[in-house]
Amino acid sequence: MMHDHALSGESGPWAWPIGFRACTGHGGLREHGDDISIVASERPATSAAMFTRSLFAGPAVVLSRAHAAGQNLRAVTTLAQNANVATGRQGEENAAEVVRRVAGVLGVPENEVLIGSTGVIGRPLPMGTIRAHFDGTAERGLAAFTAGPQDVARAMMTTDTRPKTAVRTVGHARIVGVAKGVGMLEPNMATMLAYVFTDAALSPTDLDRALRGAVNRTFNCLSVDTDTSTSDTVAVIANGAAGPVDPARFSEALDDLCLDLTQQLARDGEGATKLLRVTVGQAGDYSQAKRIAKSVVNSPLVKTAVHGADPNWGRVVMAIGKNTDDTDIAPGDVTVRFGDIEVYPDEPEADTLGKLVGIMSQDEVDIVITLGLGEAEATVYGCDLSAGYIRINADYTT
Amino acid sequence: MMHDHALSGESGPWAWPIGFRACTGHGGLREHGDDISIVASERPATSAAMFTRSLFAGPAVVLSRAHAAGQNLRAVTTLAQNANVATGRQGEENAAEVVRRVAGVLGVPENEVLIGSTGVIGRPLPMGTIRAHFDGTAERGLAAFTAGPQDVARAMMTTDTRPKTAVRTVGHARIVGVAKGVGMLEPNMATMLAYVFTDAALSPTDLDRALRGAVNRTFNCLSVDTDTSTSDTVAVIANGAAGPVDPARFSEALDDLCLDLTQQLARDGEGATKLLRVTVGQAGDYSQAKRIAKSVVNSPLVKTAVHGADPNWGRVVMAIGKNTDDTDIAPGDVTVRFGDIEVYPDEPEADTLGKLVGIMSQDEVDIVITLGLGEAEATVYGCDLSAGYIRINADYTT
Repeated sequence: MMHDHALSGESGPWAWPIGFRACTGHGGLREHGDDISIVASERPATSAAMFTRSLFAGPAVVLSRAHAAGQNLRAVTTLAQNANVATGRQGEENAAEVVRRVAGVLGVPENEVLIGSTGVIGRPLPMGTIRAHFDGTAERGLAAFTAGPQDVARAMMTTDTRPKTAVRTVGHARIVGVAKGVGMLEPNMATMLAYVFTDAALSPTDLDRALRGAVNRTFNCLSVDTDTSTSDTVAVIANGAAGPVDPARFSEALDDLCLDLTQQLARDGEGATKLLRVTVGQAGDYSQAKRIAKSVVNSPLVKTAVHGADPNWGRVVMAIGKNTDDTDIAPGDVTVRFGDIEVYPDEPEADTLGKLVGIMSQDEVDIVITLGLGEAEATVYGCDLSAGYIRINADYTT
Repeated sequence: MMHDHALSGESGPWAWPIGFRACTGHGGLREHGDDISIVASERPATSAAMFTRSLFAGPAVVLSRAHAAGQNLRAVTTLAQNANVATGRQGEENAAEVVRRVAGVLGVPENEVLIGSTGVIGRPLPMGTIRAHFDGTAERGLAAFTAGPQDVARAMMTTDTRPKTAVRTVGHARIVGVAKGVGMLEPNMATMLAYVFTDAALSPTDLDRALRGAVNRTFNCLSVDTDTSTSDTVAVIANGAAGPVDPARFSEALDDLCLDLTQQLARDGEGATKLLRVTVGQAGDYSQAKRIAKSVVNSPLVKTAVHGADPNWGRVVMAIGKNTDDTDIAPGDVTVRFGDIEVYPDEPEADTLGKLVGIMSQDEVDIVITLGLGEAEATVYGCDLSAGYIRINADYTT
């Protein structure tokens, strides 16, 4: 492993935590710009990771899942634009070769490297240009590792319109997250790659518990179009350089950071012009609250109404009602609000219609539902559905 | 009940079966054109019906479900443009009054009348103009009952772009169906009203069995946007005027007629430019075949790819893979075809790409999947997702 403390531990919001460094470069995956990134810890680390449940998980996920089992990942590499999924045995060999080359560049064991791949399915990786990139990186050595979190987040983008990063502190430690993802964000994490790096010292057990809790409350409450990616990966790497922290406080900070990234992902959903936040309260249990909230946030008719700034609460009621197995929900006990204005069952006065349209026209729209059943509550995050989604996805070819 | 045989039993494909007649008129539900219809049998009849499972089923559904229990419905009335859902006690009273007036016009018991209502949720029915319409109809009596199936189907339309009717014969009997529906067509029938009238004589048991079978194989295999309506209703009324028929042959003819209507509904999905047909074969059982087919037909990424005539089989594989509970599906045993060209696992030669784009550019696109697990097969029907869907639904206000 390389050592050059001058390059790590930079101060400022966009620097990595102590002991991490990164490099980005162009590997021919897209026409212009950086499309391959590596983020690595100089010292051994503790890790936790979660992956897509897709039946067609790609070789990057299969390989990374095996490596993550050791709970000692210390590096993450990402290839943008190409998911390397459904690419057969050659795809598996290519993923393994990328990991081997990254491990070689860093001087770490292969099984401490996680690989993420995102983009088109079913097209082989352009190994010629990828190899050239890694040859160049190996030659430049440390000098190549000057990228900050924004550079890495940018190199991970596919149809994202902006890089997504977030930073939090807990005691003396810092936590930095980078993420990408725009479509297929549901359920169970979806096409999202999110990596979190921290210099806090945590046991594998505490780190794993913190990550599972955070993912359940944040990324798994995110839904852009109900499609689930073959490549989703969320990982956290803790190298301990800043010393131990209180696990409970770390967990809170990680939740908060992941929620920040989740809202950035929702807001940048393909074609999205608004962040849509749906909160369901007074549910029988948390899973019911989340299920009902998701059916509202995912309803194409609700999403288009939000896009059109139309306070069409009838569609919200419809979307609640389609959960036909939730027979404990009594229509008479349900309430629906847009922002702070109740629209069901007490329809607003005619003179509040202008105010309602105003609420629906903001770039963050809140729909708040109570079921009158219990005390559980969940919030999910999504976006409106616009002609931009169609444009992006009808033109994005294999 | 009125009697005027001169008006019933017309010949030709667009006439009603013997003993049925219909009237349409303008009741102020939309700005121009007919928006209320009645179809009725002159003689007592046998009936079967199925309704939405939505938790927020409207009063029309509640009332009709009670009436349908008698299995002797003989008339159907439909109000277009307004679902009369989530309209409180007044909504219930209005639905009951409409039924009472229709029963009065026809001279039949109220509990032999089915009422369907479709359109905006949460807005009271305009009872003033509706009453005026029924007063006029009562005054004109028989003279008002001159509408054919196309007239009725047109009076039922909301954002439908064309009326939907179908006709089949079985023995000496005829079967005529009318339907409306464009969005919210999933799951379990969705905003669809479909009524079937026949002069065949069938027992309530045979009729019920035939309807349930047909709905399961046709309307319940239809999916436009995953939203489920509060108003779905499918009913069949058999008045026996043409005498008995073989129940098995009737069942076949009903299946065929419902499939015809289903494809018309799919093709007229909001903003649809293409009919999308997804067949899943070699499934472990029928419900698995249907579940996988639905996740493909509903995937926004598949729908937009079909819209863009993009043979993006990676998205089909993704949509299969998101059924994370179907762990018996092995990616290596799955095949995917567009039309008759296999695209997975054997990727087509480069020189067939033009042919593939040709297949994707037709106004009917078939995606055929085999799972390699068993012998069950299901076909589901949907449509592409276009900017037109957004336009229609972002502008369709409460």
